[in-house]
Amino acid sequence: MKITVLSGGVGGAKFLLGVKAFVGLDPFGGAGTDPVTGEAATPDVTAIVNNGDDIRLHGLQVCPDLDSCLYTLSGVADTVRGWGRLDETWTAAAELASYGAEAPWFSLGDKDIATHLVRTRMLDAGYPLSAVTAALGAKWQPGVTLLPMSDQRIETHVVVSDPAFEPGPGSTAGAPDVALHFQEWWTRYRAGIPAKRFVFVGAEEARPGAGVLEALATADLILVAPSNPVVSIGPILAVPGLREALLAAPARIVGVSPLIAGKPLRGHADACLAAIDVECSAQGVGRHYGARSEGGLLDGFLVAEGEDVQIPGVRVAEAPLLMMDPQATAAMVAACLELSR
Amino acid sequence: MKITVLSGGVGGAKFLLGVKAFVGLDPFGGAGTDPVTGEAATPDVTAIVNNGDDIRLHGLQVCPDLDSCLYTLSGVADTVRGWGRLDETWTAAAELASYGAEAPWFSLGDKDIATHLVRTRMLDAGYPLSAVTAALGAKWQPGVTLLPMSDQRIETHVVVSDPAFEPGPGSTAGAPDVALHFQEWWTRYRAGIPAKRFVFVGAEEARPGAGVLEALATADLILVAPSNPVVSIGPILAVPGLREALLAAPARIVGVSPLIAGKPLRGHADACLAAIDVECSAQGVGRHYGARSEGGLLDGFLVAEGEDVQIPGVRVAEAPLLMMDPQATAAMVAACLELSR
Repeated sequence: MKITVLSGGVGGAKFLLGVKAFVGLDPFGGAGTDPVTGEAATPDVTAIVNNGDDIRLHGLQVCPDLDSCLYTLSGVADTVRGWGRLDETWTAAAELASYGAEAPWFSLGDKDIATHLVRTRMLDAGYPLSAVTAALGAKWQPGVTLLPMSDQRIETHVVVSDPAFEPGPGSTAGAPDVALHFQEWWTRYRAGIPAKRFVFVGAEEARPGAGVLEALATADLILVAPSNPVVSIGPILAVPGLREALLAAPARIVGVSPLIAGKPLRGHADACLAAIDVECSAQGVGRHYGARSEGGLLDGFLVAEGEDVQIPGVRVAEAPLLMMDPQATAAMVAACLELSR
Repeated sequence: MKITVLSGGVGGAKFLLGVKAFVGLDPFGGAGTDPVTGEAATPDVTAIVNNGDDIRLHGLQVCPDLDSCLYTLSGVADTVRGWGRLDETWTAAAELASYGAEAPWFSLGDKDIATHLVRTRMLDAGYPLSAVTAALGAKWQPGVTLLPMSDQRIETHVVVSDPAFEPGPGSTAGAPDVALHFQEWWTRYRAGIPAKRFVFVGAEEARPGAGVLEALATADLILVAPSNPVVSIGPILAVPGLREALLAAPARIVGVSPLIAGKPLRGHADACLAAIDVECSAQGVGRHYGARSEGGLLDGFLVAEGEDVQIPGVRVAEAPLLMMDPQATAAMVAACLELSR
């Protein structure tokens, strides 16, 4: 069974651990070898990963969501800190800070820097991000085919009232709107400045990344991970051609609500949903995604237990949505499959 | 008294500690503030530093000689290892190795990487290396004005018989000549492959770096550090216009022999001198530099005690040349000044 997942970073990666467990893979590590041919097995799980959060820092191309997937699926992520590598060191970051080098609110660990150096060198040599991600995966063996949503640059920016604005003496002018890079809004300001809207810079000219359309066309089941609907799944859907490919896909599409009792377990989905006038509830998110039969995204939607959710044209089921461990998450995937039937 | 020094990396930096001590500065650290104006004092010592050893690794521009000077003069160099930073960590290097990223024979420490990231970002933004070096110096306060010999790219390459050559079956063909980057020859092969010649790639199009000609024209004394005559001082002299500026400089030029009893204390000057058919002796080096009165470099030459050195047109004196500490080195500088009178 081939499963294709639309995924963001930390939450999406955690969901992918459960998808791997569901298809019988060890959640942490590679897909092993084919028992007949002895060759490296082709993973049955493909993730189309948001890369709208990507940022160039210190000249290095950082892909937070792809790295969260690589590191989590290989078992080398720091799950306590919630991002980056286990047993990381911070020597270079301290040194960069002592140089006064920006951005002080985004720390790169030393192990992480090595990944970014390899990636940036390959990108600068002309390789598309999809090829670079596959090359990094050769070391990490995530056991999942990780596909950037696009090989073109798409960057999520957040329009806010300029947080640095100071009115002149006697002036009654209000703060002008400015666009912050998503990471600045998310990491520096912890999504604490009200977002007016999100802009996916470059989206108009982007195309689905290498392998993305095929992964949708050949899937037996398409899942939408319980990632942030606005800034993780949103940028993926903003890639021209991707919505059309989802609409045309022969497989059923089942989403998983990122909210439990109207709250995200992690991250700032509430602040993001508010910015696009979507109610912060499973029903709000489900209706935002919409029924595929009416041009939206979903055939089915899995929500937390006890939620009262009605979405015209979408089958809804309840399940425990706490991703306590890969087995618990695999049960969510089983419920999604059930919904798709 | 303004002293300008032609310098390579490790040995040159050690010599500069003595020059600082000689002019009354703390060898380690900045030039302090002007006692009258309270502003940052302008260093009386300027070093024109070889940057022919520079190499781009993992996309980072590495300037070994400039960094040896920055780190040594600020007291943060690892003098036991002989290069790089004190209390360095190697997390990123281990990670790069696990990616199979080249070059495995050139390790970058984590602190060092931060310096290279800052430098590379500034260079890529269009700043000349001289401006970047000054910016790095704002943090390090080396107490010496460090000037790259050129703001253009000059890279020392070493022509050798291809070390990877394997003759085909039945073939009697010999290994062809190949040019290795200086760092590959020096660090990977430890200068163990006979050099046929050195090529300063880019030298023809290069110009003296910002401030270099002025530092020569306004100096009261010009010193040639006991650096490698071929691959440290050689590239400096290969910059078009630099020899002419040295010939025209009003100050006397005094060199210090890099050899004691015909041997370099450190590095591979013997292998380098052999490649250009210069005898590995103080007299060999002195005659290679030549008398300024005959179009060469030197007015005076300081050699180790007990050497029998005769160089037509050059005043020669003997002194202990072991740079045991900055004070001992300062005595060498005093002997150079004496020679210049």
